[in-house]
Amino acid sequence: MSLFLRVVTLEEAVGVIHDIAPAPAGEEIPLSKALHRVLARDVPAAEDIPGFARTTVDGYAVRAADTVGAGEAIPAILRLSGEVSMGMEPGRPLGRGEGIYLPTGAMLPAGSDAAVMIEYTERIGDEILVKRPAAPGENVILTGEDFPKGGLILRRGTSLSPRDIGILAAAGHDRIAVYRRPVVGTISTGNELVPVKATPGPGEVRDANGLMCAAFVEEAGCRPRPYGIVRDDRKALGGTLDMAISECDAILISGGSSKDIRDLAASVIAEKGEVLVHGIGIAPGKPTIIGRAGGRPVIGLPGHPASAYVILHALAGPLLSAMSGSRGVEKRVSVILAENIPSQKGRVEFVRVRIEDGRAFPCFGKSGLLNTFAGSDGLVQVPAEREGFEAGETVEVILW
Amino acid sequence: MSLFLRVVTLEEAVGVIHDIAPAPAGEEIPLSKALHRVLARDVPAAEDIPGFARTTVDGYAVRAADTVGAGEAIPAILRLSGEVSMGMEPGRPLGRGEGIYLPTGAMLPAGSDAAVMIEYTERIGDEILVKRPAAPGENVILTGEDFPKGGLILRRGTSLSPRDIGILAAAGHDRIAVYRRPVVGTISTGNELVPVKATPGPGEVRDANGLMCAAFVEEAGCRPRPYGIVRDDRKALGGTLDMAISECDAILISGGSSKDIRDLAASVIAEKGEVLVHGIGIAPGKPTIIGRAGGRPVIGLPGHPASAYVILHALAGPLLSAMSGSRGVEKRVSVILAENIPSQKGRVEFVRVRIEDGRAFPCFGKSGLLNTFAGSDGLVQVPAEREGFEAGETVEVILW
Repeated sequence: MSLFLRVVTLEEAVGVIHDIAPAPAGEEIPLSKALHRVLARDVPAAEDIPGFARTTVDGYAVRAADTVGAGEAIPAILRLSGEVSMGMEPGRPLGRGEGIYLPTGAMLPAGSDAAVMIEYTERIGDEILVKRPAAPGENVILTGEDFPKGGLILRRGTSLSPRDIGILAAAGHDRIAVYRRPVVGTISTGNELVPVKATPGPGEVRDANGLMCAAFVEEAGCRPRPYGIVRDDRKALGGTLDMAISECDAILISGGSSKDIRDLAASVIAEKGEVLVHGIGIAPGKPTIIGRAGGRPVIGLPGHPASAYVILHALAGPLLSAMSGSRGVEKRVSVILAENIPSQKGRVEFVRVRIEDGRAFPCFGKSGLLNTFAGSDGLVQVPAEREGFEAGETVEVILW
Repeated sequence: MSLFLRVVTLEEAVGVIHDIAPAPAGEEIPLSKALHRVLARDVPAAEDIPGFARTTVDGYAVRAADTVGAGEAIPAILRLSGEVSMGMEPGRPLGRGEGIYLPTGAMLPAGSDAAVMIEYTERIGDEILVKRPAAPGENVILTGEDFPKGGLILRRGTSLSPRDIGILAAAGHDRIAVYRRPVVGTISTGNELVPVKATPGPGEVRDANGLMCAAFVEEAGCRPRPYGIVRDDRKALGGTLDMAISECDAILISGGSSKDIRDLAASVIAEKGEVLVHGIGIAPGKPTIIGRAGGRPVIGLPGHPASAYVILHALAGPLLSAMSGSRGVEKRVSVILAENIPSQKGRVEFVRVRIEDGRAFPCFGKSGLLNTFAGSDGLVQVPAEREGFEAGETVEVILW
């Protein structure tokens, strides 16, 4: 159902985004390529980990029962039965009254149930003096004690950190099921746009949104596919949109700061699908478009980079998170506001702030400027039902 | 000077790391590849931005003087002199008593100094009724108002966000000077190690550190170069280290949980350079080695992945940050401690914690387990001069 005819709230717009986001698909990749990818399935242990009982200290494997009552004055005396090397299997089970030397991580012989640190022993010929009692299980990890076979190692939806990669490696998962990274097309529209490396003529500006949107897509863990600059022309935009529909999972169209051009984008999207939202009660970014073209979600972003970036955070972020199965990468911090932020009731306002000495200073000034954008650290979101925030209040800052 | 003969403090160890980290080198790359790269130079505006005066609203460019006193009842009446399209230069200067239509972002004609939003005007034939006065500069951005030519846009050392990419694109920097990403070799040592995809035999374990260290290097913005598993053998380790010295900017050697092996690694490093630190007053990770081989910084990490990860954070992180010119990527949060953390005075202790409902719960248990590592969210660092933290204290958590 189209909400096209009225200005919707930010919550409604995010709801539409979740409705149209296709469910993430899975793929199997090598673990060596999996940093920051998102697990598509719970990962259980395929076997007991560790696969054998091992020590956690350099010292002697013993039967705990043989060390009961041992002390500095009256040590327990054990027969040295040899040594276990790293990566080797002990030759024979440990007999009563015996001890065997092993380095940290080495395999315990059958019969032993504890290890004594070398610091608490003394070796005299073939005898080991043990000067502390060892409790059963002390300084050893038993077979399957870390992860028993079938036990959950990591949950679906985990974005893999280096730590997670290490744990999956230890458990033998050299290939892993992760969500596919959606391909997201980026189209910049506007007769005033020239490529970044061009020198703009009078009235022209460089296409900042193309690279910015692509970088945002990349940071969100998706694959950007840039379609460059398209003139404000129904046929040109329609042709590029058709190409993007056939090659991408979602499409971001930026530009159209003037009403005519926004209407052109909306009408081209409608031609190939439907416009669901055209106008959101937020500032900046009111004229944002949400729709579907050829079955793909499409967001129409404002033309000015600083406004476009707000919509990337507020709407493209939730879309890309849903499509890639991730929990999002937005970083937020709670900070005390240093100055009042006035805001108009009835719409959500995103105000740029600079964080200095742990306090947030609003960056006021003309909305079309990049310098306040460059000088800011993030956004404060003023809810629609409030007329702003007062100095001294704690606010949440969405960090760039 | 070698600190080899005594156990050094964590601060001393970090000091050694900074002493041996080579200064970062620069390179020029396309802006489209620059996400999360670090600027090697301050970036000034090469020209005035914007390059021409433009409007920030859909409406009419006017001379502010012509609108003085205008109101709903008695509007100012201007002659419509035409229209400026996006990307076009206005045909002629704006005369007195004239107004010209322009969409948001279009170029102001000479003579005009403000813009009136279309909402506050009415058009009757060739006349524009202006129902609000416009102050000079209102709704327009003047030439160079955003960034004057030569003005600083972004500082050296900035790790480029999508926002920064957009700003650099707007300023025409399609290539950009960033710090080169250092190549960091990773070597895993230990006779007990088998590759991740192998099934370990009795006494054997999979090499978790190789992939974990490589992922850590990648997350830190450097380029990992894996050298796989090397047997505990002087010649084998020496040969691999030589190869890594010739191909890498720094080297991480993991493994050697037993004393013999640690000593072997230290002696091979000493053969090709010097061991500067062998033993740090921290837990876990006391037997960590810091040295130089063939002029490259080398860190010898503990064998157990959970201990190795602490040293990656505590020492490899500062090394890689210094070498890549970045400010580091470590994320920290302040959280209230839910339970006491006891700790031994005289050494820094890193304790794993789980964060739940905004409170930090220490993950106690055997140090050699991966499950408490997998179930934790980060580390609390207990300073050497303290005997732990008490429940209710606010602690800083270094997030994984």
